[in-house]
Amino acid sequence: MTDLRYDVLGLGNAIVDVLARTDEAFLLANELHKGAMRLIDEPEAERLYAAMGPATIISGGSVANSIVGVASFGGRAAYIGKVKSDEVGRHFTHDIRANGVHFATKPAEDGPATARSFILVTPDGERTMNTYLGACQNLAPADVDQETVAASAFVYLEGYLWDREHAKEAFRTAAGMAHAAGRKVALTLSDSFCVDRFRDEFLGLMRGGALDILFANEHELKSLYQTADFDTALAALRDEKVLGVVTRSAEGCLVVTRDETHAVPAFPIEKLVDTTGAGDLFAAGFLFGLARDRDAVTCGRLGGLAAAEIIQHVGARPEASLKALAEQEGLL
Amino acid sequence: MTDLRYDVLGLGNAIVDVLARTDEAFLLANELHKGAMRLIDEPEAERLYAAMGPATIISGGSVANSIVGVASFGGRAAYIGKVKSDEVGRHFTHDIRANGVHFATKPAEDGPATARSFILVTPDGERTMNTYLGACQNLAPADVDQETVAASAFVYLEGYLWDREHAKEAFRTAAGMAHAAGRKVALTLSDSFCVDRFRDEFLGLMRGGALDILFANEHELKSLYQTADFDTALAALRDEKVLGVVTRSAEGCLVVTRDETHAVPAFPIEKLVDTTGAGDLFAAGFLFGLARDRDAVTCGRLGGLAAAEIIQHVGARPEASLKALAEQEGLL
Repeated sequence: MTDLRYDVLGLGNAIVDVLARTDEAFLLANELHKGAMRLIDEPEAERLYAAMGPATIISGGSVANSIVGVASFGGRAAYIGKVKSDEVGRHFTHDIRANGVHFATKPAEDGPATARSFILVTPDGERTMNTYLGACQNLAPADVDQETVAASAFVYLEGYLWDREHAKEAFRTAAGMAHAAGRKVALTLSDSFCVDRFRDEFLGLMRGGALDILFANEHELKSLYQTADFDTALAALRDEKVLGVVTRSAEGCLVVTRDETHAVPAFPIEKLVDTTGAGDLFAAGFLFGLARDRDAVTCGRLGGLAAAEIIQHVGARPEASLKALAEQEGLL
Repeated sequence: MTDLRYDVLGLGNAIVDVLARTDEAFLLANELHKGAMRLIDEPEAERLYAAMGPATIISGGSVANSIVGVASFGGRAAYIGKVKSDEVGRHFTHDIRANGVHFATKPAEDGPATARSFILVTPDGERTMNTYLGACQNLAPADVDQETVAASAFVYLEGYLWDREHAKEAFRTAAGMAHAAGRKVALTLSDSFCVDRFRDEFLGLMRGGALDILFANEHELKSLYQTADFDTALAALRDEKVLGVVTRSAEGCLVVTRDETHAVPAFPIEKLVDTTGAGDLFAAGFLFGLARDRDAVTCGRLGGLAAAEIIQHVGARPEASLKALAEQEGLL
């Protein structure tokens, strides 16, 4: 049997966040749907960047944020994602490695620039994302290193990967390799609009046995089952053959299987600054807990703790050691 | 007489900050002098970047930070500085313009990359800077636009400009043009090591009448007059033909002329996060006050207010409207 070198391997869109504060009027004037992620092309990226205020550049990417979170808990973490060998791509690479994550995906030497998400944060702390995927379109099955997949207890994938054809194939490749090696596969639905784009395929993955764990927030779950009623959606999730983890912002999370439902409260916070990365960091804590054989409630608490840290500052990468915070709370 | 289109025109090294948290051990291991700015070449920049932790990229540059501060107070502000037309240079340009600052210096098309300052912030909030000047070496007298200088009530220069030959000439050119147009010239001594490098030249500038206002902190002032005794240094400053403004961190500032000394207390803060930009933003408030004909104490209070804002978050660009803060405090 292969040694388990990693607790969690993430596969996702490697993105650098360009974060700016804004007001509601700017969202309205630019017809932006608050709280959502939309994909933009290069001309729109240029236009929006020119129109937005001064910005901070911080490494991001949904699953990349989660993987950095796993490492911050003291977990052994690896990541697969595609940047270009440009200034911003080198910064992404520096950051994820500086967090102790194994990251060896070959950067693209030509083609589109490293992906950027222009994130507008309103005074209520809500973030609205405008993502130019750039080099992410070049992530391909050949980037999925079989040895790394087989050496990882969990492989964590993002729904956003389905927006690019090669990345979707890389996703399928990684999931297949993981199961062949006896590992577990987890998916985050990413965004309710992403679910809208790929609903049938996500349901197919789950029902075909390609997934073991599903992360979703309320909006995504309702979108998945095309219902406005949360309880209906939850009942449908209960019938799937996965461990379902549903985040509900300040109301904490629900951990759902066919036989059991656990409600875990959120951690209290002092001040909401920026919700960017809340779901990503929740998944980090939950997956780290699973990799360390904790029960569902402890996993939910670890997720809530990480989410609480991330929403109290700007950016989706932890500023404090999640391991230290978890030890303070008696969770590790 | 030319119209005064700008309250303050800044001329400085156009730098992007790469900010990371670190601990005292990292400073020791890398033989870094805590709190100081040292110049590094490209290989050392690469080495240090590889060794340091995950980082946030925010536009910086001492005088550029001040000029953005002037704009945040509602002042009319302009900036001259040299970036390269690379990704980081475009970000610097975006940010300063998004702050409402007039910035029209032609970027370098080739040669070294846009300048970066690798800033290490220790848990006590102190910052240690390692600056690769890159494209700044290409700032030249031809970049100093005579019309803009003549249209600015104050021209604000940084001592750091003396580290590069052409930039030093640009400094002299700007100061000469300003006086020819009947404007005032201000200098920040920048850093005690910078004063060490150029002591005689800075004293010569002041005594030759090239300067009207001098900004210094305690360390810089003691270095200027080569004394360990603050009162001795202050007495020497009093004899110069400039308005002297001496910042003393939590003890506020002293505004000194041959005839008068005003002590102005600092603004209280809740929590010190990152001292990066404290002096820059102090100068912003003080110069804005001067441009609006406020008395020395009010200028000192405006400076203290801006410094208090900047040290309570990461980065040297204001996150709140300084105009709104000043209005709340009854200073505007």
